[in-house]
Amino acid sequence: MNYHVMTLFPEMIDSAVNCSILGKAIERNLINVNAVNIRDYTLDKHKKVDDYTYGGGAGMLMAPQPVYDCHKAISESISRNRKVRTIYVTPQGKVFDQDLAKELSNEEDLIFLCGHYEGIDERVLEEVVTDYVSIGDYVLTGGELPSLVMMDCISRLIPGVLSNEESAQTESFDDGLLEYPQYTRPEIWMDKRVPEVLLSGHHANIEKWRHEMSLERTKQRRPDLYEIYAFKNRKD
Amino acid sequence: MNYHVMTLFPEMIDSAVNCSILGKAIERNLINVNAVNIRDYTLDKHKKVDDYTYGGGAGMLMAPQPVYDCHKAISESISRNRKVRTIYVTPQGKVFDQDLAKELSNEEDLIFLCGHYEGIDERVLEEVVTDYVSIGDYVLTGGELPSLVMMDCISRLIPGVLSNEESAQTESFDDGLLEYPQYTRPEIWMDKRVPEVLLSGHHANIEKWRHEMSLERTKQRRPDLYEIYAFKNRKD
Repeated sequence: MNYHVMTLFPEMIDSAVNCSILGKAIERNLINVNAVNIRDYTLDKHKKVDDYTYGGGAGMLMAPQPVYDCHKAISESISRNRKVRTIYVTPQGKVFDQDLAKELSNEEDLIFLCGHYEGIDERVLEEVVTDYVSIGDYVLTGGELPSLVMMDCISRLIPGVLSNEESAQTESFDDGLLEYPQYTRPEIWMDKRVPEVLLSGHHANIEKWRHEMSLERTKQRRPDLYEIYAFKNRKD
Repeated sequence: MNYHVMTLFPEMIDSAVNCSILGKAIERNLINVNAVNIRDYTLDKHKKVDDYTYGGGAGMLMAPQPVYDCHKAISESISRNRKVRTIYVTPQGKVFDQDLAKELSNEEDLIFLCGHYEGIDERVLEEVVTDYVSIGDYVLTGGELPSLVMMDCISRLIPGVLSNEESAQTESFDDGLLEYPQYTRPEIWMDKRVPEVLLSGHHANIEKWRHEMSLERTKQRRPDLYEIYAFKNRKD
């Protein structure tokens, strides 16, 4: 998997990548992260990449030319024949989830376009973007952190990136429920005991207890997910 | 605002902070980010912080003692009298949104607890955590990136962190709709013209067009948000 990140702050991508699981995966040649500075592609003699918004409104907008030329250079470095999936990180997008992560983990190359300022000129988005993706209903200062979040989520699904032990984890969302509570040593900590059933060695009972705790927790903390689960698992 | 981040990878927090808006806000003494290594608090002679899961299952769990002692040290450094809001970053949480960001931006101190491995022993979570928060329905390798996402979102709501120009931005979610498309110079780019109305100087028409585009875009890309908006704005 080759990630190409179009950004005005490539050093932010590089430094975060090096301290995370992405860094280890790069060392082992499982992924590659290529942060490209959009500013390097502006034809403006003052290296400007932004301009005022037509129709008024505070805030600057990223101009189409540098974004287009940067994208073109990356695309051509990958392949002249096919369109590479290009993700614009924006609150105006489809909300990222585990299913989308799985789908994207099958690509060979992914381009992330990180906006800054008020956003990017609509016309260049129409030209280059294949997927408008949001990581959640909140506003951030730029697209760099959300790109890193998506790369982290996608990379851990690529075979070999996680160790066997890590990848064997039971995970939230796999069955549409939140994970049950978990305990490790000591058996008694600050007068709190590990639930008896977990010490019993009785696997069927443990499974049953965990499933019940998952149901209860999902119902309590995420009624929206519980409703979907209940609907899918209704007996009729 | 003082952020205290409990993590096994403090260097990841430090490096990402320095290259973002958080770095600028720190320079101007508007916020402070204190990354604390949980491993420094373990009493284990091999500096171990994790252990096997009771009841079976692959993956290691963070043990209660180092997390508890680390949290205690941070809490005591802030105040002996009040409980500081402590956010555990977990897919098993309430989903972070703009409203929660606003609420948290009023705090003086926030503690983020970043999990790793399979998670953290439930008993210590019960002792120290006040808020279980998720940034979205996807699984990441650790709590560091989501903590950075939340700090970015919260910080930009703190007066002075954004410049006047930036903070004057029209934003997605403020009125429950996605933002309209935006355009900057040139007026014609790759045969694509900026919509006439935006060049008209007629403010009422521009507002009307933008609102219609917001409605249309929300309906198309986020029918879930559109439904809520339509319900709130129904005429009855």
